[in-house]
Amino acid sequence: MKQSISNWIKEYCRLTDYISIAQIYLKDNVLLNKPLLKSHIKSRIVGHWGTCPGINYIYGSMNAIICKNDLNVLSVIGPGHGYPAVQANLFVEGSLGEFDNNYKINKKGFENLIKHFSWPYRFPSHVNPKTPGAILEGGELGYSLSTSFGSILDNPKLITMCIVGDGEAETGPLSAAWQSIKFINPKKDGAVLPIVHINGYKISNPTLFSSMSNDELKNYFSGLHYDPIIVEPEEKDESLFNAINSALIQIKQIQKTYSDGDKPKWPVLLLRTPKGWGGIKELNKIPVENSYKSHGVPINPNNSSQEFNALKLWLKSYKIEQLIKNNKIQSNISTYIPKNNYRMGMNTNANPSYKKLILPDLKKHIAVKKNHKYSSLKISAKFISDIFEKNKNNFRLFCPDELESNLLGDVLKKTKRVFVWPIDKKVNKNTSNDGRIMEILSEHTLQGWINGYVLTGRHGIFSSYEAFIEIVSSMADQFVKFLKLSSEVKFRKPIPSLNYLLTSLGWRQDHNGFSHQNPSFISNMIQRHLDFVNVYFPSCPSMTAYYLKKSLESKNKVNIIVAGKRDLIQFLSDDTVEEQVKNGALIWDEYSSKNYDIVLSSAGDYSTQEVIAAIKLLNKEIKELKIRYINVSDLKFLKSKKLNSYFGSTNPIIFNFHGYPELIKALIDDNNILSRININGYIEEGTTTTPFDMQVRNKTSRYHIAIQALELVNTINNSKKSKLILKYKKVLDEHKKYIIKYGCDMPNLDQ
Amino acid sequence: MKQSISNWIKEYCRLTDYISIAQIYLKDNVLLNKPLLKSHIKSRIVGHWGTCPGINYIYGSMNAIICKNDLNVLSVIGPGHGYPAVQANLFVEGSLGEFDNNYKINKKGFENLIKHFSWPYRFPSHVNPKTPGAILEGGELGYSLSTSFGSILDNPKLITMCIVGDGEAETGPLSAAWQSIKFINPKKDGAVLPIVHINGYKISNPTLFSSMSNDELKNYFSGLHYDPIIVEPEEKDESLFNAINSALIQIKQIQKTYSDGDKPKWPVLLLRTPKGWGGIKELNKIPVENSYKSHGVPINPNNSSQEFNALKLWLKSYKIEQLIKNNKIQSNISTYIPKNNYRMGMNTNANPSYKKLILPDLKKHIAVKKNHKYSSLKISAKFISDIFEKNKNNFRLFCPDELESNLLGDVLKKTKRVFVWPIDKKVNKNTSNDGRIMEILSEHTLQGWINGYVLTGRHGIFSSYEAFIEIVSSMADQFVKFLKLSSEVKFRKPIPSLNYLLTSLGWRQDHNGFSHQNPSFISNMIQRHLDFVNVYFPSCPSMTAYYLKKSLESKNKVNIIVAGKRDLIQFLSDDTVEEQVKNGALIWDEYSSKNYDIVLSSAGDYSTQEVIAAIKLLNKEIKELKIRYINVSDLKFLKSKKLNSYFGSTNPIIFNFHGYPELIKALIDDNNILSRININGYIEEGTTTTPFDMQVRNKTSRYHIAIQALELVNTINNSKKSKLILKYKKVLDEHKKYIIKYGCDMPNLDQ
Repeated sequence: MKQSISNWIKEYCRLTDYISIAQIYLKDNVLLNKPLLKSHIKSRIVGHWGTCPGINYIYGSMNAIICKNDLNVLSVIGPGHGYPAVQANLFVEGSLGEFDNNYKINKKGFENLIKHFSWPYRFPSHVNPKTPGAILEGGELGYSLSTSFGSILDNPKLITMCIVGDGEAETGPLSAAWQSIKFINPKKDGAVLPIVHINGYKISNPTLFSSMSNDELKNYFSGLHYDPIIVEPEEKDESLFNAINSALIQIKQIQKTYSDGDKPKWPVLLLRTPKGWGGIKELNKIPVENSYKSHGVPINPNNSSQEFNALKLWLKSYKIEQLIKNNKIQSNISTYIPKNNYRMGMNTNANPSYKKLILPDLKKHIAVKKNHKYSSLKISAKFISDIFEKNKNNFRLFCPDELESNLLGDVLKKTKRVFVWPIDKKVNKNTSNDGRIMEILSEHTLQGWINGYVLTGRHGIFSSYEAFIEIVSSMADQFVKFLKLSSEVKFRKPIPSLNYLLTSLGWRQDHNGFSHQNPSFISNMIQRHLDFVNVYFPSCPSMTAYYLKKSLESKNKVNIIVAGKRDLIQFLSDDTVEEQVKNGALIWDEYSSKNYDIVLSSAGDYSTQEVIAAIKLLNKEIKELKIRYINVSDLKFLKSKKLNSYFGSTNPIIFNFHGYPELIKALIDDNNILSRININGYIEEGTTTTPFDMQVRNKTSRYHIAIQALELVNTINNSKKSKLILKYKKVLDEHKKYIIKYGCDMPNLDQ
Repeated sequence: MKQSISNWIKEYCRLTDYISIAQIYLKDNVLLNKPLLKSHIKSRIVGHWGTCPGINYIYGSMNAIICKNDLNVLSVIGPGHGYPAVQANLFVEGSLGEFDNNYKINKKGFENLIKHFSWPYRFPSHVNPKTPGAILEGGELGYSLSTSFGSILDNPKLITMCIVGDGEAETGPLSAAWQSIKFINPKKDGAVLPIVHINGYKISNPTLFSSMSNDELKNYFSGLHYDPIIVEPEEKDESLFNAINSALIQIKQIQKTYSDGDKPKWPVLLLRTPKGWGGIKELNKIPVENSYKSHGVPINPNNSSQEFNALKLWLKSYKIEQLIKNNKIQSNISTYIPKNNYRMGMNTNANPSYKKLILPDLKKHIAVKKNHKYSSLKISAKFISDIFEKNKNNFRLFCPDELESNLLGDVLKKTKRVFVWPIDKKVNKNTSNDGRIMEILSEHTLQGWINGYVLTGRHGIFSSYEAFIEIVSSMADQFVKFLKLSSEVKFRKPIPSLNYLLTSLGWRQDHNGFSHQNPSFISNMIQRHLDFVNVYFPSCPSMTAYYLKKSLESKNKVNIIVAGKRDLIQFLSDDTVEEQVKNGALIWDEYSSKNYDIVLSSAGDYSTQEVIAAIKLLNKEIKELKIRYINVSDLKFLKSKKLNSYFGSTNPIIFNFHGYPELIKALIDDNNILSRININGYIEEGTTTTPFDMQVRNKTSRYHIAIQALELVNTINNSKKSKLILKYKKVLDEHKKYIIKYGCDMPNLDQ
C-alpha cells in the first residue's frame, strides 16, 4: 500500500509539475503533441517556478490523505505566487472546470489553462479570488498563518492546511502568528496544520530558516509549543504523506482529550526540499535547481537556442505523454484525488453561504437623552454584548489588548477573552478558554485572524486605537483588493463586511502623546475603490451604535467607524440619528438659520463638539450672523450630487474635520465648493496635552472657528467683528497660561 | 563587594521608583517635606507606572556594570511609556540637567522634573527626542530590537542595551527582529544586549511570554541561536547585575574569537519581575502589584480618600527623606553612577556629530545620451557602488531581498550582501560576513535597522518594491514624528536623512499583479509635515542619480525617490536635469509652444513617457493645437507660489500622475489651478497585464491623454477633432484585441 501511494505521488507530481511549467512558458502545443518550436513559447514569459514543485508535492500528499480519511481541508497557500502549481492542482481535481467551462479537462481546457496563465484579461500571476478554494492572495507575504487560524475559529470540523514559505516565515506578521495556538480551543475550534516549506532560497538570497539546523528549528518551534516534524524527502515519495498522517493523529488526539488547563502541543511540519525541485540542474555550470535562480523564470528560451533546448529537454523529462493521452488524464491519477466538496478547491469554507448576524433592536436598546453626555464606546459595548448573546458561534471581537482602555469592558459581562493556556485566574477573571474576544498585542495577527474569520463567512469587529490601526494599513489594502476582485468573479458569494471600530482617538490620547495621534488609516483606505470602503464619523454617542448596526448588516465592505470613547453630548434625538445615518449627513436645524451667511460643517465627534460650541458662542454674541450647520457622518456624502443643495452656492464654508484636511479636499469633486471651503483638521500638531489644547494647537477649537467665521463673513459690522475676534484671541491666550499653570483645561473648556 | 552592589541597587531603585511615582502624581510638595495634601496632587493624573520599577532596576544594574567596566552603552527602551522611570534615571545621573538648567539636581530641579511630566508645554508622557540618549520613542511598540541592531552596525565599540517589553515582544516586528544576529559581524559591529522584561501583564491582559515556561523560553531563544539567561530576582538585588556581567563576558569572548564560518550564540537576558514591582499590593482585595491594574495609573487619589491614603502610604514606603536631604541626593548613590559620557543619557551615539558622506562627482560619473534608453536603477547602482567605494563604514543599503529584482545587482561588484552564518558559497557568491548590503524578507526589520543606523549618524538607502513599502508606513510615520520633535530640541544635532528608493513600480510589475500595485506610501507620507518629507519623481534615468545625491546630502529629512527600473528614454541633457532638480519642475521647451492652448504636465517616469508620446502624436497630427509641457519631479513644487506662472491662468491643464490622483489635488492650494486641472493617475485598476495595458486600464495612456486634450481645447476645428478622437479610440480597441491574442503589447506601444 505504501509503495502504491509513493508511486501515485510521483506520478501526480510529474503531471502537476509539467502543467506548472507549461503555464509559464507555452501558449501552443501545450501537451507537446508536436516537437516544440519557438512559436509555441509565450513572448512575455512571467511567473514563479521555484515554489511550484513543493506546492504540488504538498497538495498531492494532502489529496491522498483526504481520500484516506474523508477530511474537510481548506488550503491556504502563503507562496501565492506559486499560482501555476495551484492552478495545476485545481485543474486536475476538476475544481476550475466546475466554475468555468473553459477549463474542463479536455483539449480546449488544457490549452486554455496553460495559455491563460499571466495573460491579459485572463488569469493573473498569483492566487486570487478567481481561484476556487482561495481566501488569501499571497502576493504580499506574511499573512497565511494568521489567516488560517482565523478560518478555523468556531469551525471545529475544519482543518486548514497552511503552506508557509520559508521566505514568508522571515516576516514580522508571520513570526508573530505562531503564537495563535494559545488562543485555539481544541473542542470548539478546528485545527491549522502548518507546513513550512523550507526550500532554501528567496528571490536572490538564501532563507534564514534554511540556514537553521534541524536542532535549531526544533528548539524554535518547541519553544512556541509546537511539535515539529521534519520531513526531508529524497524524492517525491510518501514521506510527507506519512508525516501528515502522524500530525493528523496528533490533532485528533488533542481534540479528543483536551480539557481546560491543558497546553496542547500542536504539530507543525517542516518540509525541506530543493527550490525548483526537479527543474533544470544547471545552466552554464551555474546551479539552477536548489538555488535562487529557480525562483521566477529559471531560463528564458527566447534568449538563446541553448536555453530553448534546455527548456525542451526539461519539458520532455516529465514524459507527459504517458500521463495524458488523448487529452485525458490517465485514470490511475484519479485514485487519490478527492471527490466533490472534499476537493480543496471546492471546500465550502472558502466560499460560504452568507449567514446573517442576529442583531438586537436598537430602538429598544438605546435609551439616551438629548443633550446629555454619554460614551459612544460604552453604548457600543452594550450593543455588542447583546450581539454576543444572540449569536453563539459566528461573531467575535478582535482587539490589541485595548478592550478596556477603549471602554468596551462591558462586553465582558456577556463573554470573556479567550486564552487557552493556564493563567492566574485570580487576576484574569475575564479570561477563559472559550471566550469570544481575541486580544493579542499584534495588530498583524488580529488582522489575519479577522480576515480568515470573515472570508469563511463569519462576522467580526476589529476595535483598535485609531493611531495604531495604521500598522496594518497594508494588510487592509490587500483585503480591499480581494473584495474588489471577488466582485468581478461570478461564483463568489457575498461575505460579511470587515468592520473597524477606531477609538482612543488622537484628540483625546490622555495618557499618551504624539506617537498615539495618527488619523492616516482613513486617508489611506479612502484612496481605494470607494465601492468597497465606508468611513463613518458618528457625531454623537448613540449614532455609533447605529453605524455599527449598519456595518454588521452590510456585505463585502470594509467599514471604518471612528468614534471617541469619552463622554460627549448626545446632540440628536434617536429619530434624527436614524435619519442622518440613512442620509450620510444632515442639516442640524437646531443650530441653523433659514437664510445664512456662512455654512459650518464638521465630521468627527470631537470636531463637532467644537463647531457646535462655536455656533453657540456666535449665536449668543452676534445674532446678525446667520449660520447653517451640516454634520457629515458618512464621508462618501462629500461625493454625492446633493452636496450643492446642502452647502449653498456662494457662501463661505468652514469644515472642521477629525483627520487630515487634505482628505476632505480630495473627496470633494465640486470645484465651486472647493473654491469656498476652508478645511481645518489635524495638522500634525500632536503631543501629550489637555483635550482642549489639542484643538487649539491644530486650530480646530471653538474660538478658532468663531474667529474664522467672523473673518469670512462680509455682512457684519467691522468694529463689532474686531472686538469679538479680540475677545476670542484673549481667551486663547488665557487658556495657554492656565494650562501651563494648572496642567488641565479651564472649567467649561474641557470637552 | 557583592553585598554592597546589592544594597546600592536597592537604594538606587528606591530613589528612582519614588521619583517615577512622584512624576505621575505630584505637582507640589514633591519630596514629601510636608504631609501630603490633595492640593499636591495633579488634577490630570496620566502616565504608566507598571514598567517603571523594572526599567529602574535594569538601568541601575547597568549603571553599576558601566562603572565597573568603563563601557560605552547606548540604551534603547522598548516600553517608552515607562518615561517617568527614564526621566528619573536621567535626572539622577545629571544628563537632563546637562541640557536644561531647569532640571539640575536642586530644589527647583526636583520640582520641575516631577511637575513637568505629562504637563502641557513641558514634558510629554513618553520617551521622545527631548530625552537625552534616546533614539526611539517607544509609543508604537515593536521597534526597539531592530533599531538597536541598526545602532551597532559598523560600531564595534558600542553595546546597545535594549529593553524589550513582554507586550512588545508579541508584535510582528519584534518577533522578526530576533533574526538580526545572523547579520552581525562580531569583529566589525558592536553588540546588542537584549533584556526581555517579562513582567506579566499588558494594559488588561497577561502577556504571552509570561505564560511560557522557562523551558519554553529557553527553547525559543536557543532556536533563534541565543544563549538565554533567565533572571528571577526575589528582590531588587544584584541578580541582574551578575547576569549582565556574564552576558558581557560572553559578548567579549564572541568578539575576540570570532572567525568566518562561526555561528555566534549571543546572550539574551530574560528578566521576570512583577508588574508595578514594589507598588500597592491590592485595593479592595483586588491585586494591583503583579497585575495589569499596575499598567497605567494604579490608583487615583482624586477618586476617594481611600485611594488618596493608599497613595500616601505608598509614597511614604520609599522613605525618600533618607535618600534626598536638603534637595541633595545622598552621596552613596553616586558610587555606581557613571561619569561624563559614560552616562547612558550622554552616550554620543544617540546624538552624533554629523559626518558627511563622500559622494562621487555625478557629472564625471554619468554618461547618458539624450533620447537613448537607460534604466534609472542601473545608473543608480553604479552611483551607489561608487559611494560604497568611497565610504567604508558609514553607508549601507537595505533591501528586502529585492536588490537584483530591482536591478541594483551591479552594486555587488563593490560590496556584498552580509550574512554571517555559514551558507553554500557556490550558490551565494555575493554574500559574505562583511558585506554592506542588508537583505532580509522583513520590511519591518529593515526599517528598524535603518532607523537605528541613521539616528546614530550613518547614511543609508532603503530600496524596496514600491507596493510593499506601505508595510512600514506606520514605522515611517513614527520616524517623521521623531524628526519633527527633534527639530524643536536645541541639543539635537542634525542627522543624515532616511532615503527610500522605491522601484519595481506598480505600472511595470511584470511578474506580478494587483497585490504588487500600490502607490499609497507617498500619499501617506505627504500628509506629514512637509518640512521633513520630500517626494521625488525623476522623469528620466539620470535624474534618479541626481535626486539620490541630493537626498544623501540632505539632513533631517525623509526622502522618497520613486523610479522605475525598466529602460526609459533619457529626455533631457545632463545640464537640464541639474536645472530641474534644483527647481523641482521644468517647462520642457522641446515639447512646448510659446503660446499654448493647453498645459500638459506629469510626475512619474512611466507617466511622463505617456504624456510625451501623446504630445508627439498631437504635434504630428494636429499642428494647430499648441501645448506647454511641464515636468514635475519634486511634489513640493505643487505648493510653490511659482505654480501660476508655470501653469498659466486660463488654459485647461492635464496632469498625468504616477500615484493616486487625489494626492495631486490635495497638494495644490491654488483654487484657480484646481478648477482647471484634470488629474489622471492610478485609479486602482491593477492586474497582471502588459505595460501599456496598465496605462489603458487606468486611463493614463498616450491615447487617453491625446483624446482628453482634444476634448478640452475649444479652438480646434470640431470635425478634425472628432476624426482624431475616433482614430485614437480605434487604436485602443485594437490594442485590447491584440494583447488578448498575443499576450504582449503591439510593437511601439510597449514602454
